Amino acid sequence: MSDKRIKIVEKIFDANDRLAQQNRQRFDDSNTFAINLMASPGAGKTTFILATINAMLDSNVRIGVIEGDTAPVTIDSDKIAAAGMPAIQVNTGGQCHMDALMVESALEQLSLEELDLVIVENVGNLICPASFDLGTHSKIVIASVPEGDDKPYKYPNIYRGLDVLIINKIDLLPYLDFDMDYFRQGVEMLNPGLETFALSSKTGEGLESWLTWLKNKLPQ
Amino acid sequence: MSDKRIKIVEKIFDANDRLAQQNRQRFDDSNTFAINLMASPGAGKTTFILATINAMLDSNVRIGVIEGDTAPVTIDSDKIAAAGMPAIQVNTGGQCHMDALMVESALEQLSLEELDLVIVENVGNLICPASFDLGTHSKIVIASVPEGDDKPYKYPNIYRGLDVLIINKIDLLPYLDFDMDYFRQGVEMLNPGLETFALSSKTGEGLESWLTWLKNKLPQ
Repeated sequence: MSDKRIKIVEKIFDANDRLAQQNRQRFDDSNTFAINLMASPGAGKTTFILATINAMLDSNVRIGVIEGDTAPVTIDSDKIAAAGMPAIQVNTGGQCHMDALMVESALEQLSLEELDLVIVENVGNLICPASFDLGTHSKIVIASVPEGDDKPYKYPNIYRGLDVLIINKIDLLPYLDFDMDYFRQGVEMLNPGLETFALSSKTGEGLESWLTWLKNKLPQ
Repeated sequence: MSDKRIKIVEKIFDANDRLAQQNRQRFDDSNTFAINLMASPGAGKTTFILATINAMLDSNVRIGVIEGDTAPVTIDSDKIAAAGMPAIQVNTGGQCHMDALMVESALEQLSLEELDLVIVENVGNLICPASFDLGTHSKIVIASVPEGDDKPYKYPNIYRGLDVLIINKIDLLPYLDFDMDYFRQGVEMLNPGLETFALSSKTGEGLESWLTWLKNKLPQ
């Protein structure tokens, strides 16, 4: 890579980090916990968010969702809106990740003061999103068991910077060759002691531990 | 994006296209059919390649595989080598896709004249690989049913430029809410009449039609 190109890339990262810091300040000022949710395409991000929303309906927790997609679709934001929560759809224009500027623009359309939790559903991708701080408090990855047990070994960067790991679709384990020990060993190597919840967003199995963790993070 | 940055990006694409053309010429000169295999992480690319290799063992077809990963691992190339075929591992250095230069470098290590088929297993990603011609003859995407039926709608670019679509892991259909009509409708909108094979690399169901298509492409 030429010196010129390296400098331009550095400038992009610097600008993103500054904006991310501003986003974090806005979340803090309004006492809103913010999550950057990352995963492969089809790991079950939206279904996981919906399961979380539905499980907390009785608790008066207000959840806003920012939906990032590479195409101009509203499939996911429509589902969130149907569940009764505010959802902002962001079109990344083909880019393989959300950035802090996209989150800043989405925040203009959310009444942050009324929200206890904001979840940014990142673009389905295990590589690009790892490099961009969005200004959230917690970075969470969903690994779904049909993807196989070797993903931490193949996509180490995204596991390194992680705060919480969700192992999703455990209802499919009986039908898969998924070696949980091998998977967890890979994760432990990259991110020792990482907070991990194994669950099925579909059946609700294992969801309770995740909800307990989340409730402890929300404004009391 | 600044004018300067646009020019640099254009230069990268131009250089890639020139190299891709050279790669294609090399494949043609040695009478080798070449495939660029793309998919989400965990859609089953390596298992699909292994199933194809094993099904063709008796036919004396020689298959070389170029394995692209973002990390310095040899998990996939070890599996191919264990199946008795030459495999070259390429580390993209964190990049979210293979490019024509990486394929050119890998070809230095393959005896192309001895091979009937080369499969490039791209990085697990539904976005970045769509923009880079590698110089192969055929672009193939594997969609696995646990990823869900809305992927064509969310990742349209990769479906648009495609020659063949593999719908993988159909052995899991009984355990999933996967609407095959909705999925196929999305594909048809983006790529009318696209050659499609629904199969399970694990059980072998549906593999025969794919193998028939492939054999017709190989040097007779």
